[in-house]
Amino acid sequence: MSNSPLFLKALSGERTERPPIWMMRQAGRILPEYRALRASLSGFKELVETPELAAEATCQPIDRLGVDAAIVFSDILTVPEGLGLPYEMIPGFGPKFPKTIESPADLDKLVGPQDAADSLEYVYGAVAASVKRLNGRVPLIGFAGAPWTIFCYMIEGQGSKTFSKARKWLMQEPVASQRLLNLIADTTAIYLKAQIAAGAQAVQLFDSWAGVLSPKLYHEFALPASRRTLAQLSDEQTPRILFAKGASHSMGLVEEADAYGVDWTTPAASARAAYGDLTVLQGNLDPAALYGTPENVSTEVNAMLKDFGPHHIANLGHGLYPDTQLPAVEAFVETVKAFRYADAAAFAK
Amino acid sequence: MSNSPLFLKALSGERTERPPIWMMRQAGRILPEYRALRASLSGFKELVETPELAAEATCQPIDRLGVDAAIVFSDILTVPEGLGLPYEMIPGFGPKFPKTIESPADLDKLVGPQDAADSLEYVYGAVAASVKRLNGRVPLIGFAGAPWTIFCYMIEGQGSKTFSKARKWLMQEPVASQRLLNLIADTTAIYLKAQIAAGAQAVQLFDSWAGVLSPKLYHEFALPASRRTLAQLSDEQTPRILFAKGASHSMGLVEEADAYGVDWTTPAASARAAYGDLTVLQGNLDPAALYGTPENVSTEVNAMLKDFGPHHIANLGHGLYPDTQLPAVEAFVETVKAFRYADAAAFAK
Repeated sequence: MSNSPLFLKALSGERTERPPIWMMRQAGRILPEYRALRASLSGFKELVETPELAAEATCQPIDRLGVDAAIVFSDILTVPEGLGLPYEMIPGFGPKFPKTIESPADLDKLVGPQDAADSLEYVYGAVAASVKRLNGRVPLIGFAGAPWTIFCYMIEGQGSKTFSKARKWLMQEPVASQRLLNLIADTTAIYLKAQIAAGAQAVQLFDSWAGVLSPKLYHEFALPASRRTLAQLSDEQTPRILFAKGASHSMGLVEEADAYGVDWTTPAASARAAYGDLTVLQGNLDPAALYGTPENVSTEVNAMLKDFGPHHIANLGHGLYPDTQLPAVEAFVETVKAFRYADAAAFAK
Repeated sequence: MSNSPLFLKALSGERTERPPIWMMRQAGRILPEYRALRASLSGFKELVETPELAAEATCQPIDRLGVDAAIVFSDILTVPEGLGLPYEMIPGFGPKFPKTIESPADLDKLVGPQDAADSLEYVYGAVAASVKRLNGRVPLIGFAGAPWTIFCYMIEGQGSKTFSKARKWLMQEPVASQRLLNLIADTTAIYLKAQIAAGAQAVQLFDSWAGVLSPKLYHEFALPASRRTLAQLSDEQTPRILFAKGASHSMGLVEEADAYGVDWTTPAASARAAYGDLTVLQGNLDPAALYGTPENVSTEVNAMLKDFGPHHIANLGHGLYPDTQLPAVEAFVETVKAFRYADAAAFAK
């Protein structure tokens, strides 16, 4: 057994005595200290773009909750901004891009991968400042949006329930779509390598909108683009996690990641059947389960841990909802930390 | 072989020479004659609430596209309105309920099932007017939202990406949630029976937001509520279709319907594996596929028809997007109508 932190041990495929835990959106509005920090600033982007402040937000859940990994406080929309499409974060609405890609000719106006990644120095600064502030307590995860998810925002310019305009682009401009996805994929690979160089010890690719695609379009466009990014990181010796939300129809088709996120609508048994018992899976508590009492949370978490078995990183199946109460979050963390595979006789695999 | 229309033959489980076709949202903004009708009115609700106008919208896709079934032009939000929560349809925003259910005590202020259903006479009028205007050309489908989906709107008062407030209610007010779901289920059963009495020859229950639930909450709340509605229709001799969008984790768990909708993210092979070859399945073309050329549409539709095999009703896996062009829609319809199971040698089952 190595002496590396629990989270990295689990990611490397080693058996651990219990699963590590972290939570998507753990650095954010569920924490009073985050809300206080945020209230002192001009806006969300000031926080993302100021390394010391981002590092403070990154570390808050480690101090408060004792989770086994930190994730750098940032946003998936830094990459389209680096490529030449700046965004605004509008309170009560979400992200909004004043400029979007409207025709294939617009692709010529975008920045190249290296320059785009180079312009995101503040993210690498946030990674380095977070690592310094963490001081070895837990590993830091870097992250980026997957190419398809970033493509959605570059075409639509804001959130959508169906991203039908982005899907229309795939259908009507397949060559330009491929070109844009490749550009995003290559930029994202450089971006994640730079986060690793700045100190990130694992990276996660979020394909938040994989679930709006038919399996056909997912296989044709989104999946190869994610693989293209992940493959460029294969020499990094840094574990890669892919979370393709809503794409349970295609579990097991990507080999370039070291762990796979499972969303809250996918039964653990289905994920295990698709990925096998030895693949590291991450997830997938329903964030709404944290609206329950601490006792109920504990029951659900124990059931989840048994369902996944070893080679598992405990997490939610979607980001924390902002109105989640801390006692429920604490119950999640404590239940995972008290769990022992050795006590669960059914897992003597 | 009976002499009943193709759509009803297929729904009854009879083998047909080709699958029937209709499309979710076929009566609506894709048709210029619908946009003209709509532009002449004060608003969406005038159309829904005036039987002769609703009947006109119902029949437009039959006249224009030659589909094998009509669906009454209406809205799933009539039921919460009948129960005492009126809605407004705000252009560019969607439905908005000025009053919502905020506490269990609010349930006491709601109308009972029979009175709620009785207040929706205009829907039964629209059904009757549609049947008259169709004059036997194709069968008419009546419909309602499934209890969970209606519950979402009664709690949240508007659309949402996650419906986390409604899910919070399930977690924090399970008894009141059950009571509200039962109230909606019973109202919906009476409502659909009245549509059948007015002439609907099939009914569809739309669980549009099934996909935001974890399998656990879906099994505990949404699924039993849909079954409760469907079971009350078992003596009607009228086929029932259940479309639980995003709940592919639970295919095959409901027995009270005569056919099951399949969404566009679920491979036909997965649906057949869960339901078997003899269950009537409906779906599931990606609505974004209709952004392709007519030739591409035809190729994709033929592939889909082969994937589902017999005992299939051709449809989309989600409603038509409003900016879909008619040539693609026409190619969908024509391809299905030209298809013959007898020519697809692989289906000599």
